Amino acid sequence: MWSNFPAIKEEMAAFEQYIEKKLTSRNSFLKNASKEVVLSGGKRLRPAFAIIAALHGDYDRSRIFPAAASVEILHAATLVHDDIIDNAKIRRGQQTISEKHNTNLAVYTGDYLLTKSLRLLLETGLKPEKLDVLARSISLLCEGEVEQYLSKYSVVSVYQYLKRILSKTGILFSASMILGAKTAYLSDDETRRFGHFGMCFGAAFQIRDDLKDLLSEQATEGKPVLNDLKEGIVTLPVIMAVKNNPGFLKEVTDYFNGYGDINIILRNILASGGVKDAERLKNRYIEKCRNIIKDIPRTPYTNAMSEIVDWL
Amino acid sequence: MWSNFPAIKEEMAAFEQYIEKKLTSRNSFLKNASKEVVLSGGKRLRPAFAIIAALHGDYDRSRIFPAAASVEILHAATLVHDDIIDNAKIRRGQQTISEKHNTNLAVYTGDYLLTKSLRLLLETGLKPEKLDVLARSISLLCEGEVEQYLSKYSVVSVYQYLKRILSKTGILFSASMILGAKTAYLSDDETRRFGHFGMCFGAAFQIRDDLKDLLSEQATEGKPVLNDLKEGIVTLPVIMAVKNNPGFLKEVTDYFNGYGDINIILRNILASGGVKDAERLKNRYIEKCRNIIKDIPRTPYTNAMSEIVDWL
Repeated sequence: MWSNFPAIKEEMAAFEQYIEKKLTSRNSFLKNASKEVVLSGGKRLRPAFAIIAALHGDYDRSRIFPAAASVEILHAATLVHDDIIDNAKIRRGQQTISEKHNTNLAVYTGDYLLTKSLRLLLETGLKPEKLDVLARSISLLCEGEVEQYLSKYSVVSVYQYLKRILSKTGILFSASMILGAKTAYLSDDETRRFGHFGMCFGAAFQIRDDLKDLLSEQATEGKPVLNDLKEGIVTLPVIMAVKNNPGFLKEVTDYFNGYGDINIILRNILASGGVKDAERLKNRYIEKCRNIIKDIPRTPYTNAMSEIVDWL
Repeated sequence: MWSNFPAIKEEMAAFEQYIEKKLTSRNSFLKNASKEVVLSGGKRLRPAFAIIAALHGDYDRSRIFPAAASVEILHAATLVHDDIIDNAKIRRGQQTISEKHNTNLAVYTGDYLLTKSLRLLLETGLKPEKLDVLARSISLLCEGEVEQYLSKYSVVSVYQYLKRILSKTGILFSASMILGAKTAYLSDDETRRFGHFGMCFGAAFQIRDDLKDLLSEQATEGKPVLNDLKEGIVTLPVIMAVKNNPGFLKEVTDYFNGYGDINIILRNILASGGVKDAERLKNRYIEKCRNIIKDIPRTPYTNAMSEIVDWL
């Protein structure tokens, strides 16, 4: 990744060293657990977004790196707590904290990372009122997660689905870009554009994830196939299939009640155009991203945003 | 409480209205759960500490109330997560979130409250570097909790015990006082004194809690008697009893392994002077509190600190 953008590649390498150094604790369990989670090889999309936005302005590692580390560590915190809720055993090919240790230590590890994230935010030099971006995002994230949890096993509307994924996934990509833009002193108008890009990217990214969960022939990134539906999480292709073919709702409900075959469900999602329509909505968000890029003052780094959109 | 201090009583009443108004969320589950936890009738010691410290300086509700709400909501967040870990069913006479709903929703409710706490902190108008007091406290709190969890079922030294309770309990009382002092623009020197008072108060408060767990004839505040030892948490009276009578260690270990009678254990803690020595250490911290009060510039509110120390 970023091989066409040596400047970004260099920043990401320096950032990797920075974040590792930041993961310290007097308590050796928390230090090791934090490192395990954060350094287990994610794609680092969120910090890259903060860095790319910042490269459009007055770039300074001493302000940008804490912001970028803050969003990545926050992301890690949410993964640790999500893995408790989802009962997940494997993440990025490694045992999750809740599986390797237990729920209790995973609760504290997540809390610790969440706090670490907020402490890094305080290091950016931004004024408190500007810092509320990320803190507010975390509130929204919690709300999105609770909504997803409470709507388990029910087929919500496309509108509710979008509201949920924007809170759950969009908000953190958006906050990454906003923080990057703010720490590089971009104008409010420009900052808003980067934030909007992050939000649309997040929506497309989540729909892509939904499709991957459904279409991959084998487990990718350590996640079993059709895991979401098995866990009661109704993804966009399922929602679209029910929208096109209301009779399919009964099949999904029956499946949740323990009847029916997941392979038949999968066939019917495809037959009802669920995948096709989910892809169409994903492409609409990709199109939105491309349009926002056009409005951003061009720099050598703006193309990196186009490239990451193409990757979707 | 505070009946001898009408000014404090009035502030606490106004604060109660303030904190209730702050507990909002788009998500009705989180709103209700937050209110249930925060408004379930705690003693509000931590916000009272912030308010009392602030009354020694340039007092202004618009800065003090967010600080006081921040520490109380943080305290509530830790209770929600602690109740998951301790498998607690009842708190303040009400069902805990983890019991009434489930672990998953309790994880998110705690995260949500934690974030709320940090957002309130941003409303105090304090500079980011001053805000790190509370954020750092949360890190220390997590470390203290993990240390307690990992040292379950083992009799640690008095030194390790003190380190743990200062992180677990002292730190938040200290942070309350420091935040109150800072938002009222007290000098660094005065702020340090209030912080030190909070730390010593916290230590005495925790030892008092340890003694209560051991001595109360019946459940108080919804907690069953000798609950700590049953949960594998070795409190100060047990540590002191083992220190005075090393042979007692085997009895405690046997009890953890499923042999022995809790009533005999209790009798032996008393016989080995565990309670007497724990009380002595508690009194040492109370004495420290009284000495610190002498160094604080006298105001009509300084006596409230003496009164709360007497209550211990």
